[in-house]
Amino acid sequence: MAEVTIVEVSPRDGFQNDPKLISTEDKVEHIKKLVEAGFDKIEVTSFVHPKKVPQMADAEDVLGQIKHIIPLKKIALIPNERGYERAAKSHVDEVNWVSAATDTFNQKNIGMTIEDNDRRFFEVRKRAKEDQIQFNYSIAVAFGCPYEGGVSEEQVLRQVEKAVDQQVDRITIADTIGYAIPSQVESLMKKVVDMAAGIPVAIHLHDTRGFGLANAYAAYKQGVAIFETAVSGIGGCPFAPGAAGNLATEDLVYMFERMGVKTGLDFEKVIEAADFAAKLTTNKALGRIRHIERKFL
Amino acid sequence: MAEVTIVEVSPRDGFQNDPKLISTEDKVEHIKKLVEAGFDKIEVTSFVHPKKVPQMADAEDVLGQIKHIIPLKKIALIPNERGYERAAKSHVDEVNWVSAATDTFNQKNIGMTIEDNDRRFFEVRKRAKEDQIQFNYSIAVAFGCPYEGGVSEEQVLRQVEKAVDQQVDRITIADTIGYAIPSQVESLMKKVVDMAAGIPVAIHLHDTRGFGLANAYAAYKQGVAIFETAVSGIGGCPFAPGAAGNLATEDLVYMFERMGVKTGLDFEKVIEAADFAAKLTTNKALGRIRHIERKFL
Repeated sequence: MAEVTIVEVSPRDGFQNDPKLISTEDKVEHIKKLVEAGFDKIEVTSFVHPKKVPQMADAEDVLGQIKHIIPLKKIALIPNERGYERAAKSHVDEVNWVSAATDTFNQKNIGMTIEDNDRRFFEVRKRAKEDQIQFNYSIAVAFGCPYEGGVSEEQVLRQVEKAVDQQVDRITIADTIGYAIPSQVESLMKKVVDMAAGIPVAIHLHDTRGFGLANAYAAYKQGVAIFETAVSGIGGCPFAPGAAGNLATEDLVYMFERMGVKTGLDFEKVIEAADFAAKLTTNKALGRIRHIERKFL
Repeated sequence: MAEVTIVEVSPRDGFQNDPKLISTEDKVEHIKKLVEAGFDKIEVTSFVHPKKVPQMADAEDVLGQIKHIIPLKKIALIPNERGYERAAKSHVDEVNWVSAATDTFNQKNIGMTIEDNDRRFFEVRKRAKEDQIQFNYSIAVAFGCPYEGGVSEEQVLRQVEKAVDQQVDRITIADTIGYAIPSQVESLMKKVVDMAAGIPVAIHLHDTRGFGLANAYAAYKQGVAIFETAVSGIGGCPFAPGAAGNLATEDLVYMFERMGVKTGLDFEKVIEAADFAAKLTTNKALGRIRHIERKFL
């Protein structure tokens, strides 16, 4: 395998937690910069309740202003049926359904148990199929939960099994709070890839504890070829204490470029988008490569 | 393998580049804190010319003040015969001889070609054997050189071969400027371990580009069980532009603890030593774990 896909999530996971409201105009400009850098799959927003995540209240507007960018597959996170309906009406190409690996996180994040969430998942998955909208099934806190602590592989694989049963279009294993270490990634991702039986498997990485790149490499070695990251390492989850910082996309691009693995991205333009994202946000940017002198890259 | 050795290098590689002169008293207190944390092999200083590295001018004094700490194996870097003589007189347990993988770095670092350096190496290695002083052979800029750029595996393996011929006590592959990526570590370390034929192999890691942990894990997977790092990620090499930051020891300890691999260290006391080191230095501390809320570790 000498090709990977990086799904850029900064417009959603990078922005959602920022205390400063970012204008729709800036969000759209950021997405355009990402498209110029070569990203063709971007999680552009989420259809959550605007009272819960005010930063995402302009989801319809953002999608409206980028609808003419045809090569871009627009992904939106949805927490429930209402979110699905808003997303479908806004012509998204893919919905990202999130189910946590633990009940406590699911309760705090989506306000219901995994079981209740699953019932809605089956229903929404069916509707997305009818509407020909791609369906990504994300499993949050798959490596560790801020409320329950350790998460067993069985907890995650139980969710993977349901996603396989429903023949979703993609399964994403999310290290929501950046708790994973590479040995854990190696072990779990091997089992997930096996169980997925051909359904594309992605990993969503945070760099909270500095293991983002190590985990990306470990996942890649297990056959994972889709990575969810955010330029300049911005972001985090508002309902996950200690979740500051997605893995910085440019650091991952740098690694793959050095390895000779194709990302289809223009590194310098990724850096430009990262610089722009860093300016828009108040989050502490964790990316490393952006701060290295060019001639020493 | 469920055990690793971490050789703490902060008193040498962590301090040497600091523009602020650290007092001998503080250096000794730092070493004592490290010993309390469980380190039994520490690179405590270097016998370089005091005009070249003023921070290390008190090498004799540091060693004099810690000579009563018997369980501690005291390592000192030596660049030449003069350094060896000073080290031997100061009763070090191990000398760390450095040869770069490239001629240009060798010239800038030690002021001679690899060939000239090798001749002295053979001579000093013989004397160390007679004096019953352990001999570590370090290969600097083994993954990338700030002057020559890329470094081939052949360049490194040529040096490894000489070290094996001379039956040194340890061979250390150094990523002096933090340029390595895990695929490179995987490939090179496998070959080094094979060629070393039983001589212990170590890896010396910097975290300049954020790959320190990824590289440590990759090396571990290839059978490397000795790691050179510095608490709180302080340090860098004065003659290697862009070399800021050793891999933070506490981050590596955290990883191994999570993996169930024994380090023999007291994690909380490692953190205490890291906090102390951070206070002593002006270097930007790069370690991550130290800044994570304890309850979320």
